[in-house]
Amino acid sequence: MEPAIKYRLIKKEKHTGARLGEIVTPHGTFKTPMFMPVGTQASVKTIAPEELKEMGAGIILSNTYHLWLRPGEDIVEKAGGLHKFMNWDRGVLTDSGGFQVFSLAKLRDISEEGVAFKSHLSGEKLFLSPEKAIQVENALGADIMMSFDECPPFFESYDYVKKSAERTSRWAERGLIAHQNPATQGLFGIVQGAGFEDLRRQSARDLVGMDFPGYSIGGLSVGESKGEMNRVLDFTTPMLPEDKPRYLMGVGSPDALIDGVIRGVDMFDCVLPTRIARNGTTMTSQGRLVVKNAKYSEDFRPLDPKCDCYVCKNYTRAYIRHLIKADETFGIHLTSYHNLYFLINLMHQVQDAIEQDNLLEFREAFFEEYGYNEKNTRNF
Amino acid sequence: MEPAIKYRLIKKEKHTGARLGEIVTPHGTFKTPMFMPVGTQASVKTIAPEELKEMGAGIILSNTYHLWLRPGEDIVEKAGGLHKFMNWDRGVLTDSGGFQVFSLAKLRDISEEGVAFKSHLSGEKLFLSPEKAIQVENALGADIMMSFDECPPFFESYDYVKKSAERTSRWAERGLIAHQNPATQGLFGIVQGAGFEDLRRQSARDLVGMDFPGYSIGGLSVGESKGEMNRVLDFTTPMLPEDKPRYLMGVGSPDALIDGVIRGVDMFDCVLPTRIARNGTTMTSQGRLVVKNAKYSEDFRPLDPKCDCYVCKNYTRAYIRHLIKADETFGIHLTSYHNLYFLINLMHQVQDAIEQDNLLEFREAFFEEYGYNEKNTRNF
Ligand SMILES: [Zn+2]
Ligand SMILES: [Zn+2]
Repeated sequence: MEPAIKYRLIKKEKHTGARLGEIVTPHGTFKTPMFMPVGTQASVKTIAPEELKEMGAGIILSNTYHLWLRPGEDIVEKAGGLHKFMNWDRGVLTDSGGFQVFSLAKLRDISEEGVAFKSHLSGEKLFLSPEKAIQVENALGADIMMSFDECPPFFESYDYVKKSAERTSRWAERGLIAHQNPATQGLFGIVQGAGFEDLRRQSARDLVGMDFPGYSIGGLSVGESKGEMNRVLDFTTPMLPEDKPRYLMGVGSPDALIDGVIRGVDMFDCVLPTRIARNGTTMTSQGRLVVKNAKYSEDFRPLDPKCDCYVCKNYTRAYIRHLIKADETFGIHLTSYHNLYFLINLMHQVQDAIEQDNLLEFREAFFEEYGYNEKNTRNF
Repeated sequence: MEPAIKYRLIKKEKHTGARLGEIVTPHGTFKTPMFMPVGTQASVKTIAPEELKEMGAGIILSNTYHLWLRPGEDIVEKAGGLHKFMNWDRGVLTDSGGFQVFSLAKLRDISEEGVAFKSHLSGEKLFLSPEKAIQVENALGADIMMSFDECPPFFESYDYVKKSAERTSRWAERGLIAHQNPATQGLFGIVQGAGFEDLRRQSARDLVGMDFPGYSIGGLSVGESKGEMNRVLDFTTPMLPEDKPRYLMGVGSPDALIDGVIRGVDMFDCVLPTRIARNGTTMTSQGRLVVKNAKYSEDFRPLDPKCDCYVCKNYTRAYIRHLIKADETFGIHLTSYHNLYFLINLMHQVQDAIEQDNLLEFREAFFEEYGYNEKNTRNF
């Protein structure tokens, strides 16, 4: 059987080993490294599918936990799957629901079998196991599915993280067995182990032994510093096979994307660009720009004069500020569009830098202009 | 001097006298009868300018009161006017601010000079006069401007309405004198007089005597029945010159549009399609459809199977219901788009019916399918 997801390594950057590649899915092929917009509830907030295509998105992420609770995976399945339900014919990736169960749900109770918890919407008692997560993900029909995992806090005790990561590996194996559609949906394993090198290595070995078509790196961007994150990537990605894609979950700040690519990561996702957009904050080549601030009220320049997106070609800071101050949702539509484009386009520039073997120079110039320095490494 | 706004009567329908025509503005020419989407604060809620073009909008309305208060007409003027500010190169019409002063503002005090009131945003004391309204409208730079008027309640006393309508005529004359840009902005007079035939006639005579490039009919759709509205139109539109456009303000239910056209109206505007869209209510050829209702949760048909808009071609009732229930603004974007398209498209069908001299048959078939009857003439 042909696997649903195939990765082709095109080139490694000479100085860093960063990977230029492509991922083939049942809904199209896209170049990596790349960034995936997040459509939590089967919609990338305020953005139409046509706009996602226009900005160059090849695949988007949607959340199993949210769709399971509402509208219910049975309705999505009856609609013909997530692609048809939301009118998106390119790639879709679903997480397993684990992250939300651990972060949103109340009174959770973890056992070997799975997690009992109460719905954050209705208070209803629910149970999520590896088998249940995979059943929901099979019904949703995404091209790429995530294994059910526990994402422990970064600074948990060694003993807890060890037990958790070992259980996550056992859950991954149960998910593989439960998976009904390996020919049309590729299931990724998720490497855990927090900041502990030996646990990360063990987790990677366990999962690679199960031969997933791709590997995720979980448990990062949960409060640790950028330096900690990079240290973990330094010893984790080398454990992963060269012929499979690597996905760093929940990471979306420009510096972390570039530093992740340098450490061999191919895929990223994050709600950051749309979440900050709703507060009137944008990412530009000169760093953050909080467009709702009063100083932009008569600024008739685009959000980012170096950006060639639809928003920057057509709208001014003054207009976008007005819309946001006046509670017009078209304003956050424009900031969301620009921020997503910014990250997708950043990855295109990174692809070019890999092609040209000058990724470190690109990084230095980008960091300099964006304003990253020792003091604000946690900023975006 | 060539007037900024010109009207050309193309044809009158044989049985009703309904007018097929076109209005030439500095930002394009559009066929009438037609419906104008409302962009209160320089944005048609959730809708991009490109989408307004796609659905066939030739002109949109924006609100002088709101833009005067926020961001301020000076900022819009510095941006190069409303068209540039909001990235819309077709027609724009601004009201005078009068309606909002009388409906939104607090503690208003009307005199011959104008209206003193407090801002509904800041509580600041403000004064709006015919001269001030025109100065703000000149700064905003719309193609069509409205005279400053008082819109009294429909069931006010004869004496009050008489005094008010006479003052509105004097205010119209002061506005004409204050108007700085007659070559690029056309100022319309507004006929008032509530439900009183002699007052409407007098108001129309006063204004026609001032030779405006177009005439609005105000003070309707403010609580009176559809029958009352039609009765007023029956004696008002015949008083207006044939070679100027007629605009019925604030009317947007399908039956009122059709009945208005039959009585010689050319232009309509209303927040109705976007306001009800935000509550999950849509207009379809079979009448109102409240898509957020539970019965649509597994309904995979389009909002209106007879509609060929972007939304109906791509999205199901089940998906749109899900988005609205999940507070995803893309859901109200879709219902807003469909509702606006529905009214713009209805006017295209009405244009065809005038062309073919079968407007009464069209009305009968449309009312029958939409479900209008004696009992719910106030419904949309
Ligand atoms: Zn941009
Ligand atoms: Zn439609």
